[in-house]
Amino acid sequence: MEYRKLKDQDQDGDTNEEDVESLRGKAISGVSLKPLAAFGVSSSDRSKWKRKTIVTFALTILTSSQAILIVWSKRAGKYEYSVTTANFMVETLKCALSLAALARIWKTEGVTEDNRLSTTLNEVIVYPIPAFLYLIKNLLQYYIFAYVNAPGYQILKNLNIISTGVLYRIILKRELSEIQWAAFVLLCAGCTTAQLNSNSDRVLETPVQGWIMAIVMALLSGFAGVYTEAIMKKRPSRNINVQNFWLYIFGMIFNAIAIVIQDFDAVANKGFFHGYSLITTLMILNHALSGIAVSMVMKYADNIVKVYSTSVAMLLTAVVSVFLFRFHLSLAFFLGSTVVSVSVYLHSIGKPRR
Amino acid sequence: MEYRKLKDQDQDGDTNEEDVESLRGKAISGVSLKPLAAFGVSSSDRSKWKRKTIVTFALTILTSSQAILIVWSKRAGKYEYSVTTANFMVETLKCALSLAALARIWKTEGVTEDNRLSTTLNEVIVYPIPAFLYLIKNLLQYYIFAYVNAPGYQILKNLNIISTGVLYRIILKRELSEIQWAAFVLLCAGCTTAQLNSNSDRVLETPVQGWIMAIVMALLSGFAGVYTEAIMKKRPSRNINVQNFWLYIFGMIFNAIAIVIQDFDAVANKGFFHGYSLITTLMILNHALSGIAVSMVMKYADNIVKVYSTSVAMLLTAVVSVFLFRFHLSLAFFLGSTVVSVSVYLHSIGKPRR
Repeated sequence: MEYRKLKDQDQDGDTNEEDVESLRGKAISGVSLKPLAAFGVSSSDRSKWKRKTIVTFALTILTSSQAILIVWSKRAGKYEYSVTTANFMVETLKCALSLAALARIWKTEGVTEDNRLSTTLNEVIVYPIPAFLYLIKNLLQYYIFAYVNAPGYQILKNLNIISTGVLYRIILKRELSEIQWAAFVLLCAGCTTAQLNSNSDRVLETPVQGWIMAIVMALLSGFAGVYTEAIMKKRPSRNINVQNFWLYIFGMIFNAIAIVIQDFDAVANKGFFHGYSLITTLMILNHALSGIAVSMVMKYADNIVKVYSTSVAMLLTAVVSVFLFRFHLSLAFFLGSTVVSVSVYLHSIGKPRR
Repeated sequence: MEYRKLKDQDQDGDTNEEDVESLRGKAISGVSLKPLAAFGVSSSDRSKWKRKTIVTFALTILTSSQAILIVWSKRAGKYEYSVTTANFMVETLKCALSLAALARIWKTEGVTEDNRLSTTLNEVIVYPIPAFLYLIKNLLQYYIFAYVNAPGYQILKNLNIISTGVLYRIILKRELSEIQWAAFVLLCAGCTTAQLNSNSDRVLETPVQGWIMAIVMALLSGFAGVYTEAIMKKRPSRNINVQNFWLYIFGMIFNAIAIVIQDFDAVANKGFFHGYSLITTLMILNHALSGIAVSMVMKYADNIVKVYSTSVAMLLTAVVSVFLFRFHLSLAFFLGSTVVSVSVYLHSIGKPRR
């Protein structure tokens, strides 16, 4: 359970990044761009498209390996570490990575208006909001289990897909075509289908309070994601490492508060790093990198891409688990995967006409 | 089981019709056509569209009530009538209804080139083919149960959807847009999802022989459907009642052969109508009318419409059963229905551009 909680929190949309510039450089030099040029795609469009593809791919792989680490850790036995300290470490690591990337950029490019760390109140005032929304969502998470069991909650979490789409449309005012809306409904249905098991029908017995909480949590999560995207895109030329640094500073603060409220005794008696193992360290590292990938997707792509990326990662995880852990795939999984695949296809061909 | 077998055979695509002309007349007089006229739709297009809608609607309702009769009959206890005689009665009734409709037309319009019953060898030679294909398919049906159980077979029957789409494209050379193909894959996945239950995963253990037989049966069923459409549409002006008459005459012959092969002893000892009850009669009547509706869909719409119509009927049946028989709908049913609904929507907006 602890591992899952950690995963949920991070996967839903925290943020920060490594060195985008160096990543971009590698990708462009490694692949021939002639075919795109033939279609009259400009150099700038090409480079944007490349960057978007790379960050999406990175997020998919990192999210998928996150889930595999969770399965692995469950098989290895339960480690009694404190989840709040692990979350704090994830935020700290993301902060450190952002600073390291910034230091490198300052060395090569010098300090400019866009990459200086100092900020104005006007710029920084919005940064605590996503972290605050996640705090409320995580608090609600404890109460929803009075109405729904854990597998049922995993199923209800697919409502995030719909809430993200709706809030993306309403708040960011971005357009989705009819076909893309249909694809989004399919993504939600397909992901849920892929997770069906013999006990799933119990979700239908969820009392109305459970449904309301699930919907509120989906809205909070969707709103946090959309808000993060709005922050990242508000100043397109602002260096992403600076934006991440401030986002994660508030993540650290909110998680420190959570340690004090929830785990103060355990940390005081057993120590901050009590129960940490190799796999805990690997999971923290993975969560930090995933968080950075989410941040990059928010800046260079959007919430819709993020939702598709994490959904495909869920399917990828199941397939990899067949080989790693001899998992059996259900018929429901195959059907759900088919629906998700068609959804990805429809999303890509259904771009709104301009 | 018997009821189900009867249902399967008929639902897969037999044929005949009542009085289309009178149906059409009623429909057009009953509804204002002004809104369509405003969009520049011609009178002939309008009437075709009306007719298509009516026959599709009729097929959906008849197929749905067919399934409800099956559930009802199962609840009422098992009737030991012979399935082959019931099938024969269905064909006979359809033949009789075709002749009655024809008689009425002869009275009002006189005998013309298009509605005379006499035919040429060249016209009639193709009519036995669908009935023959169904005969082979029904024979195979007995063997497939060596590899798959009955609920598993219900799941595998959804392969019909894909085979119909593929053969429709290859044999009738009719075009489906990319979106419509995607919708068709979704229809198959959605129908299968809606039928999932806790034992469905056993289908995945089907041996390769079972899969091959299921695919062959799907191709036979799809081929029979597509072939029927080709026959009905080859002579557009030929009266549908004449076409149906000849189609069903061969249906009667092939079912008579089936009685001799499979149920000769039972019929000889217990009588032809042994075990018939009110519900058996209602089911025969319903199957005959459904067969006629299928025929009309083949002539005035196409196999794709038929597949959508029977799929939606399956969902409708489940919903009606909640009220009639206090059925519980599963989460899988809701997810499958969502996918099927999106598929219907995508099919309608995804018409190929001309």
